[in-house]
Amino acid sequence: MASETDARREKGALSLEKITGATGEAVVNSLSDIAPELGDWIVDFAYGDVFSRPGLALCTRELTTISALTALGNAQPQLKVHIEGALNVGCKPEEIVEVIMQMAVYAGFPSALNGISATREVFAKRGIKLAAARLD
Amino acid sequence: MASETDARREKGALSLEKITGATGEAVVNSLSDIAPELGDWIVDFAYGDVFSRPGLALCTRELTTISALTALGNAQPQLKVHIEGALNVGCKPEEIVEVIMQMAVYAGFPSALNGISATREVFAKRGIKLAAARLD
Amino acid sequence: MASETDARREKGALSLEKITGATGEAVVNSLSDIAPELGDWIVDFAYGDVFSRPGLALCTRELTTISALTALGNAQPQLKVHIEGALNVGCKPEEIVEVIMQMAVYAGFPSALNGISATREVFAKRGIKLAAARLD
Amino acid sequence: MASETDARREKGALSLEKITGATGEAVVNSLSDIAPELGDWIVDFAYGDVFSRPGLALCTRELTTISALTALGNAQPQLKVHIEGALNVGCKPEEIVEVIMQMAVYAGFPSALNGISATREVFAKRGIKLAAARLD
Amino acid sequence: MASETDARREKGALSLEKITGATGEAVVNSLSDIAPELGDWIVDFAYGDVFSRPGLALCTRELTTISALTALGNAQPQLKVHIEGALNVGCKPEEIVEVIMQMAVYAGFPSALNGISATREVFAKRGIKLAAARLD
Amino acid sequence: MASETDARREKGALSLEKITGATGEAVVNSLSDIAPELGDWIVDFAYGDVFSRPGLALCTRELTTISALTALGNAQPQLKVHIEGALNVGCKPEEIVEVIMQMAVYAGFPSALNGISATREVFAKRGIKLAAARLD
Repeated sequence: MASETDARREKGALSLEKITGATGEAVVNSLSDIAPELGDWIVDFAYGDVFSRPGLALCTRELTTISALTALGNAQPQLKVHIEGALNVGCKPEEIVEVIMQMAVYAGFPSALNGISATREVFAKRGIKLAAARLD
Repeated sequence: MASETDARREKGALSLEKITGATGEAVVNSLSDIAPELGDWIVDFAYGDVFSRPGLALCTRELTTISALTALGNAQPQLKVHIEGALNVGCKPEEIVEVIMQMAVYAGFPSALNGISATREVFAKRGIKLAAARLD
Repeated sequence: MASETDARREKGALSLEKITGATGEAVVNSLSDIAPELGDWIVDFAYGDVFSRPGLALCTRELTTISALTALGNAQPQLKVHIEGALNVGCKPEEIVEVIMQMAVYAGFPSALNGISATREVFAKRGIKLAAARLD
Repeated sequence: MASETDARREKGALSLEKITGATGEAVVNSLSDIAPELGDWIVDFAYGDVFSRPGLALCTRELTTISALTALGNAQPQLKVHIEGALNVGCKPEEIVEVIMQMAVYAGFPSALNGISATREVFAKRGIKLAAARLD
Repeated sequence: MASETDARREKGALSLEKITGATGEAVVNSLSDIAPELGDWIVDFAYGDVFSRPGLALCTRELTTISALTALGNAQPQLKVHIEGALNVGCKPEEIVEVIMQMAVYAGFPSALNGISATREVFAKRGIKLAAARLD
Repeated sequence: MASETDARREKGALSLEKITGATGEAVVNSLSDIAPELGDWIVDFAYGDVFSRPGLALCTRELTTISALTALGNAQPQLKVHIEGALNVGCKPEEIVEVIMQMAVYAGFPSALNGISATREVFAKRGIKLAAARLD
């Protein structure tokens, strides 16, 4: 019989994999020799309790995370993980760019520019090219 | 012939009204005797250039703004405007709550709690009651 | 037989009460009609998983929370809860003031001043008076 | 013979009065029963060591403080003190508004709007009215 | 006949060049394949609408930007651009250092130290040496 | 006869050495050609006036600094200095990790993760290995 802890762990691990591919698990594993419980909390709480909830489309969850991390501007590694996460759950590259551009209004141009830098790195790594045509 | 400036102004004013109802216009008007150009920029740039863009559903724009303002935690008046804005463009109350709760993971519990306080005020004002049943 | 979830809940509730008296429970209850799971996470995760851990004195946990919230400067309600919490778990009033004053160095004088304002409110409510003599 | 400590104190007290009028001294005095050394540091370090330095016009010091506090967005009481301070040392009201509007670019519109709210309060208290004509 | 959009673009491009030399244009161009409109907004809005305004000396605009970015502490690339910008529009190196040192008071010593690190890089690149004599 | 300034300098230099070993002095010296007074303030004010105060154990001072810098998330170099500082004044490695993990609750998981990254670097440099056994 799977315990309740096991259930949260399993649900979280599934979410983590769906969203981050192998990246999230690598982050969690990297914590094993210094702060293993922090890794547990990421799986059980962040991905098991929070990100597994219904009531919000996964792409929307990722886009709201991207806007928050862009606005805070102090978590570039995690921002890149969630730009990849947004792509992994089916957000369009253009939507990611759109959300980050919008942060120019709410957190200022430097935050938006640094968010675009993170995006450029992720897109380059994954071979994503946007149609350069302006939308307006 | 409408000038280009008029076109941005008109597009922005439409967006501002669709999203904020009369609230945004009141904010803009309140600036007229102290910083009128800041009001112009809100209409022309923030709502005309940015929020009027296609490529992202309006509800998603509002939810990403809500998550960013919740995470920053230093803009309660604007957070309330955009909680109203999200409702005005058709986001479900539950989605708003969901996005703010998620900020516990990315910006900490105090930010999430203060975001919920703002939400409670807006929901009370608009007579919105959530089904109290837990989702899990 | 208490389930594992019940065990986290119980451990968290005990921690919450020890640290915040009735205040924390009131915060959690106030969430019941709008974001009940956020309340659950506070009890189960924040107080059950994190604050119940051995390895750090409870007073030290509270003082490190106070310094962080003072530095961030965007969570006055929660700062007050933890100033009370620090007192509840046996920190001396002078230690609380000392930690907040120190934030002048790490987050600037405005953050320290606003932290002292929160402290003054809590001390007044609890009838705490400091010996006015300077330490140096 | 004035000691060196007395010299810093005196220099700081002069600066504090020139910039804040009676307000700064009131803040310092209000600390006397809870954190008197924090008050000393404000006078001796912030105003004696830092603000008394040559090499930057006092108005420029105040305007750079205003932009920083507007951008941080978590120190409204201190922002108001320095808006008054800027006026006290001869900055023009229009310059203050201009600096805060500019923060829309570097810290986002909510920060700029909340900075303007603080300005409006100070201007109202001092009976300052701006010419409403747009500059452009 | 130049359109109004062209006028904003032209005014912004002139401002951008005066302040950032070729650097700003390079930033804008680097956005062309991923977020070209963000580049447009920088030219048209940030430099055309905001930085081109009369009512504040360009050096003061740059110094207030430097203090804000130093205080926020999350935008080192942009801080360097504006340290260069301040030099380009005639601010003295000593004024830049003075503004950043002052942020120790308003945003804490770590922000000031990291601002000085950015300054050191820019000064080294441009061969600027300060007279080492203390001012006091 | 040592002057009062000399006394603050001496007290500060002793504190600086006790807490940071040779690192803090190196930081101060590195400022000598660009912002020497900022270095003086670090010694005289931050370490002489503030960190030399009785009333709080040095390890507690360091842990509260670590939590604040982790929460702010924009001062990695200084965070590493204070992780070393905490070790230098006798904090246990486990306490440092514990404080940083706790910031997941108050400032979000990205801040905690980046704090752990800084810790990992410091621990690796000093050859510190934690017992990997989970505490719970």
